[in-house]
Amino acid sequence: MKSAIYPGSFDPVTFGHLDVIKRTANIFDELTVSVLDNHLKTPLFSVEERVKILQEATKDIPNIKIDSFSGLLIDYAKKKGVHVAVRGLRAITDFEYELQIAQTNHKLSGGQLDTMFLTTSLEYAYLSSSSVKEIASFNGDISMCVPEFIAKLVYAKYGFIRE
Amino acid sequence: MKSAIYPGSFDPVTFGHLDVIKRTANIFDELTVSVLDNHLKTPLFSVEERVKILQEATKDIPNIKIDSFSGLLIDYAKKKGVHVAVRGLRAITDFEYELQIAQTNHKLSGGQLDTMFLTTSLEYAYLSSSSVKEIASFNGDISMCVPEFIAKLVYAKYGFIRE
Amino acid sequence: MKSAIYPGSFDPVTFGHLDVIKRTANIFDELTVSVLDNHLKTPLFSVEERVKILQEATKDIPNIKIDSFSGLLIDYAKKKGVHVAVRGLRAITDFEYELQIAQTNHKLSGGQLDTMFLTTSLEYAYLSSSSVKEIASFNGDISMCVPEFIAKLVYAKYGFIRE
Amino acid sequence: MKSAIYPGSFDPVTFGHLDVIKRTANIFDELTVSVLDNHLKTPLFSVEERVKILQEATKDIPNIKIDSFSGLLIDYAKKKGVHVAVRGLRAITDFEYELQIAQTNHKLSGGQLDTMFLTTSLEYAYLSSSSVKEIASFNGDISMCVPEFIAKLVYAKYGFIRE
Amino acid sequence: MKSAIYPGSFDPVTFGHLDVIKRTANIFDELTVSVLDNHLKTPLFSVEERVKILQEATKDIPNIKIDSFSGLLIDYAKKKGVHVAVRGLRAITDFEYELQIAQTNHKLSGGQLDTMFLTTSLEYAYLSSSSVKEIASFNGDISMCVPEFIAKLVYAKYGFIRE
Amino acid sequence: MKSAIYPGSFDPVTFGHLDVIKRTANIFDELTVSVLDNHLKTPLFSVEERVKILQEATKDIPNIKIDSFSGLLIDYAKKKGVHVAVRGLRAITDFEYELQIAQTNHKLSGGQLDTMFLTTSLEYAYLSSSSVKEIASFNGDISMCVPEFIAKLVYAKYGFIRE
Repeated sequence: MKSAIYPGSFDPVTFGHLDVIKRTANIFDELTVSVLDNHLKTPLFSVEERVKILQEATKDIPNIKIDSFSGLLIDYAKKKGVHVAVRGLRAITDFEYELQIAQTNHKLSGGQLDTMFLTTSLEYAYLSSSSVKEIASFNGDISMCVPEFIAKLVYAKYGFIRE
Repeated sequence: MKSAIYPGSFDPVTFGHLDVIKRTANIFDELTVSVLDNHLKTPLFSVEERVKILQEATKDIPNIKIDSFSGLLIDYAKKKGVHVAVRGLRAITDFEYELQIAQTNHKLSGGQLDTMFLTTSLEYAYLSSSSVKEIASFNGDISMCVPEFIAKLVYAKYGFIRE
Repeated sequence: MKSAIYPGSFDPVTFGHLDVIKRTANIFDELTVSVLDNHLKTPLFSVEERVKILQEATKDIPNIKIDSFSGLLIDYAKKKGVHVAVRGLRAITDFEYELQIAQTNHKLSGGQLDTMFLTTSLEYAYLSSSSVKEIASFNGDISMCVPEFIAKLVYAKYGFIRE
Repeated sequence: MKSAIYPGSFDPVTFGHLDVIKRTANIFDELTVSVLDNHLKTPLFSVEERVKILQEATKDIPNIKIDSFSGLLIDYAKKKGVHVAVRGLRAITDFEYELQIAQTNHKLSGGQLDTMFLTTSLEYAYLSSSSVKEIASFNGDISMCVPEFIAKLVYAKYGFIRE
Repeated sequence: MKSAIYPGSFDPVTFGHLDVIKRTANIFDELTVSVLDNHLKTPLFSVEERVKILQEATKDIPNIKIDSFSGLLIDYAKKKGVHVAVRGLRAITDFEYELQIAQTNHKLSGGQLDTMFLTTSLEYAYLSSSSVKEIASFNGDISMCVPEFIAKLVYAKYGFIRE
Repeated sequence: MKSAIYPGSFDPVTFGHLDVIKRTANIFDELTVSVLDNHLKTPLFSVEERVKILQEATKDIPNIKIDSFSGLLIDYAKKKGVHVAVRGLRAITDFEYELQIAQTNHKLSGGQLDTMFLTTSLEYAYLSSSSVKEIASFNGDISMCVPEFIAKLVYAKYGFIRE
């Protein structure tokens, strides 16, 4: 069985992430989407909230598991027995950064963890979790960025109630 | 069964390509490496020669098929019933070009053909088929670039005989 | 009156070019779209054909003029009395090349010719005239790339008749 | 009347910004240079100080207005009835970031806000507000970076008095 | 006598830095490796610790001096009477940033300080001081990143004792 | 004695190349500027002409030698006993290409040939030999690109006589 891990912050998951999730789920037998618990950043949603949001947003895709992890990806992947990580790429600066991490993980894991990249679909190329949060913090329209139930949760974090 | 196509010129196949082939063969159940018959370029090796070289160079990998095609990749993939193309990435300018082709293929195929990228392993990042040919044309050392039997074939094309 | 020139090969004009043309026509009082007669390249359509195609494709935009020129853009712009050139940007490698040309033109014109850039809309970011031609040469589908009347003309150049 | 907005931090305005302002003022009938009040950053100069500095530095350009805003650029541009934002570009990483913001604004505004880019003139390509502040914080020479009256204000913020 | 300065944070020095140091020491008669005392960052090792680590790690290279400095590089280089700074380059985003600093230093020094760049050897291209620290903070393996005596010091900072 | 080679086409040498030559001559005891005899390109000036032009243009710099070579740079450098090549960098796409060649040369030479990069001074960043030729072919002004005696030679190649 061919398995892959899609690690990320998903704070919150956007249409761009969901597009990568759907396309990757078609390629592998099983895909684990795993929320990174990064103690250095202050997230909008807790790890538990992000796991629940991902479960709801991907409930129609049968071969998906939602999980979370802290520490090094190579340790987590080894524990899970998975040899492929998946990442979406939007832009050049993304690419540089992701390339370095992919090569570090390949080296540190003794070749046991490889990273495959998907390019973000054009209609979502402008999306990032941080711009979603910035727009929502000014009560701007994020309906083109995230599913409706997530939009409500994001606005609520900033004290806005919208129909 | 999860299948993928790795299309390319492979004129000739290098250690960098072989590294991508081995890593991709671990990820998919079946991998078809397919030589593009590009009528616009004058290759060093004919399509038939390149297919034979690839067969020899990958003979120890069980789930590999070698093939060739002309025309559009999306038509070839459709005929084969394959939904994933694989490409190796070395550098930024590679990335830009590959990104555009991946998006064109995704759009033209109505979402039926997706492209996944692997980054070239560090020890092969400096390699390209064209630099192999340029070095060999001056009787320079290409033993770090291609397997020994391919090196002999390349030198022979330029009229050099080496031990 | 604020005028601008949009110079290019337009061989053929794509939906991406037309998007830049429409958006630029909203910004300036008058926009001259001008076909570069580049003697170093062998085009699919002659300069005269490209001018006619552009006239037809932009006939509903009132403040557009279609023209052609050969030689240096700074000489052409000076003759026209225009101080702004407009260019669309899709990608990093585009940007580097366009940046160098913009700076050369600014320098050579003694500051009389400035270049403004628009980024191509996301839905057209994958488009280029050369990929349109490559796809059409294999009788592939270019209906998402160019208006219908242009598609027919492109197929005809490659000996295909399509409904 | 063709109007544009040039939004930015201008903390402080440099010769590079002033070069973009002058060139843009030649292209549009009216240009509003607007200081972004970003509550996430701790600026060297207050919004009010930055507005006054800009007024002084641009007093000889007739079609310039100086303003400030907080919140989303698309909301501010809508309120002003302006459809074009202008940004200067120095480098690739600038370009990536600016490209993403331009596409987000175009999308969020329903196509009502477009962004045009000017490349920074070569003689100012090395300049940034943050390097001006870093150099000044060590009492280094910033006379090639900002007008004289601004240099004095910057040194004063760091407790230096210079002739 | 041809002298150069290699300025940096070196928090801690990696095999990548040591590779640049060795190659640069072959090119110049004398090389000063100088630790930047940057008051804006909280380092893992103090300036004094980093100087000692560098002394130990380079003790076999005869024409090396280890030093530290604060403030502007151009002031430090002037005081030392050195006209060449050396920097290693790994990636595009490195390049953009380094390019801007090199041009600022060249301009500010009146052409007295030039910067030469070496590209990092392929086998160390994935290395950065910050990824070394991140990996070590999870007790991951950094033996491929830094000499053994440095690895022990890094682990000790995070409270790990390893054989 | 510290020696370096600056290899290139120099067809023709520009103010940008001359700037790199002068700055490199200050860094090394001896600099050999060497014209690459590339049989794949059709140059404007023959190798002999380019050597003579370089001799004239650098006659006031005492530690410069002008030479030419064909074949691989690593073979030429080995024959000369030189371990450092120097290259000027203008832009990102330059950097990618140069990086790959530098790493190939380092690998092929067994670490015997290293490449150091200088960034082109800002005032010459827009310059390239090919744009000089394109501008001159339309009798445009190249006085800001090359020394006067070279401008006359370039115009003469295109059949123009200018004062």
